[in-house]
Amino acid sequence: MTKILIFGHKNPDTDTICSALAYAHLKQELGLNAEAARLGEPNQETQFALDYFKAEAPQYIEKVGDDVESVILVDHNEFPQSVDNIKDVRISEVIDHHRISSFETKEPLLFRAEPVGCTATIIYKMYKENNVAIPKQIAGLLLSAIISDSLLFQSPTCTKIDVDTAHALAEIAEVDADKYGLDMLKAGADLSKYTVAELLTMDAKPFVMNGVNVQIAQVNTVDLGEVYQRQAELEDEITKIVHEKDLGLFLFVATDIVHSDSDVLAIGKDQDKVEKAFNVILKNNRALLKGVVSRKKQIVTNLTDAFKG
Amino acid sequence: MTKILIFGHKNPDTDTICSALAYAHLKQELGLNAEAARLGEPNQETQFALDYFKAEAPQYIEKVGDDVESVILVDHNEFPQSVDNIKDVRISEVIDHHRISSFETKEPLLFRAEPVGCTATIIYKMYKENNVAIPKQIAGLLLSAIISDSLLFQSPTCTKIDVDTAHALAEIAEVDADKYGLDMLKAGADLSKYTVAELLTMDAKPFVMNGVNVQIAQVNTVDLGEVYQRQAELEDEITKIVHEKDLGLFLFVATDIVHSDSDVLAIGKDQDKVEKAFNVILKNNRALLKGVVSRKKQIVTNLTDAFKG
Repeated sequence: MTKILIFGHKNPDTDTICSALAYAHLKQELGLNAEAARLGEPNQETQFALDYFKAEAPQYIEKVGDDVESVILVDHNEFPQSVDNIKDVRISEVIDHHRISSFETKEPLLFRAEPVGCTATIIYKMYKENNVAIPKQIAGLLLSAIISDSLLFQSPTCTKIDVDTAHALAEIAEVDADKYGLDMLKAGADLSKYTVAELLTMDAKPFVMNGVNVQIAQVNTVDLGEVYQRQAELEDEITKIVHEKDLGLFLFVATDIVHSDSDVLAIGKDQDKVEKAFNVILKNNRALLKGVVSRKKQIVTNLTDAFKG
Repeated sequence: MTKILIFGHKNPDTDTICSALAYAHLKQELGLNAEAARLGEPNQETQFALDYFKAEAPQYIEKVGDDVESVILVDHNEFPQSVDNIKDVRISEVIDHHRISSFETKEPLLFRAEPVGCTATIIYKMYKENNVAIPKQIAGLLLSAIISDSLLFQSPTCTKIDVDTAHALAEIAEVDADKYGLDMLKAGADLSKYTVAELLTMDAKPFVMNGVNVQIAQVNTVDLGEVYQRQAELEDEITKIVHEKDLGLFLFVATDIVHSDSDVLAIGKDQDKVEKAFNVILKNNRALLKGVVSRKKQIVTNLTDAFKG
């Protein structure tokens, strides 16, 4: 039977890993030869979720092999965020909740994007539509994804549908969403074990804004001070990346998950776009963005506008 | 209440017009202030369907006005095929069955593309999902769209879902799908009343293939000989368009709906790509493509490959 590979974006987060696993399971239940894959190491938060629900991380792939008939992208659509040889493979489906950009196909496909807070919310819906029961483990993983993307329902990207879905999943997974969620977020927010290089790549996404290469890396923390103890080191490393990747801007976003603010560090010749986008003044290359927690809904949109105008 | 405008592609065909009308009705039933629109004149086939089911054509728009909160694209996603000021408006939804290309948004949206033969088939599904009854008139229009896009179920793009949907719609519309369908297709295939300029624009779509501007115009006929009586005139007019629009290739596709073949006329410096794509030799700028009826599934895909390699 022809093989279908299902994977999320590079620098995988909890939604990318868990949605790939859950959608592969659904496809298998529907009789298809589907396998989940990942394009990078699971982060601490994701590993906590996998361990808690006794799940294996999907197989790591560097590129899609010749034995694969088609691929399904979850939690992303922009080619620069996908597997390196994405342009050489047949994409049969996309299940996502992001803006659409830098994506194209030669043939029609199933493309399902919905403006909800998490891909896992859409996957849950697809289980229901196909009348496939959600196993306890899969429910736990999907719940973890929603908690992660919504910062325990605090992010402006979080919709009522996400909250309702999370509570239905928590029941199947037999956990208390709030208690489990906080434990999981804290596991991910312990940044002390990460090197500076890891902080800058663990959840970094490339964008092209009005022709300019922009990289936005985000970390969650419960202690902004701890993160910026290493500011000098962060700046050195970012400066290297800016040169290597010919970036106009590298924006490092440290999000305080307790207070729901972000303290950002901006490096690059287009630094001023950050000031313009958020109406702030960078001091020592940094600014506190009050109430900003969502890269997708609050950062990418405003920055894209700032680069245009 | 904020206004939502729903429209299909330029040079509207029956699916574009009827899906816009049917989806606007569904949105209205769901309590939204939605209006259907069109970006050009309905063709003879579409007019036959509108007249038969006593429906009004949607309002014509040249661009999206300031009073519109967001737009919904049906039956297309590629910006060059859409309204001129598409980049300045908020796209809240796309319902489509084509490849995805030259499309991007700043924010997440509902994007629903399915690899079926017709947008109307997806709209039918959405009525069902929302438990909204399909009025007889709307059923007739959706049926007309499926018959048009599938050439009465003969096109390779036609899936079992399209056929089943068409039969369910025919029952609501109280018509015999085959008899009504042939009458409608014949109404559209009577090309005698069209000028050469009209033949070249009535169902023409622009594409960008490996950086080259390509225009593909298609007409349905029951008499290929009649169409090519005007070959010299067609060539003169196409040559003009090639220069005006800086095209590498203009491909005129005359599809014989009785024998399910297409006789194509290719003009432009990239003429040879047609020979390569279909393994034919152009004689007098023309070639018969046996069994080729679908621009989307048989022509665009092969041509895109020929331009790449």
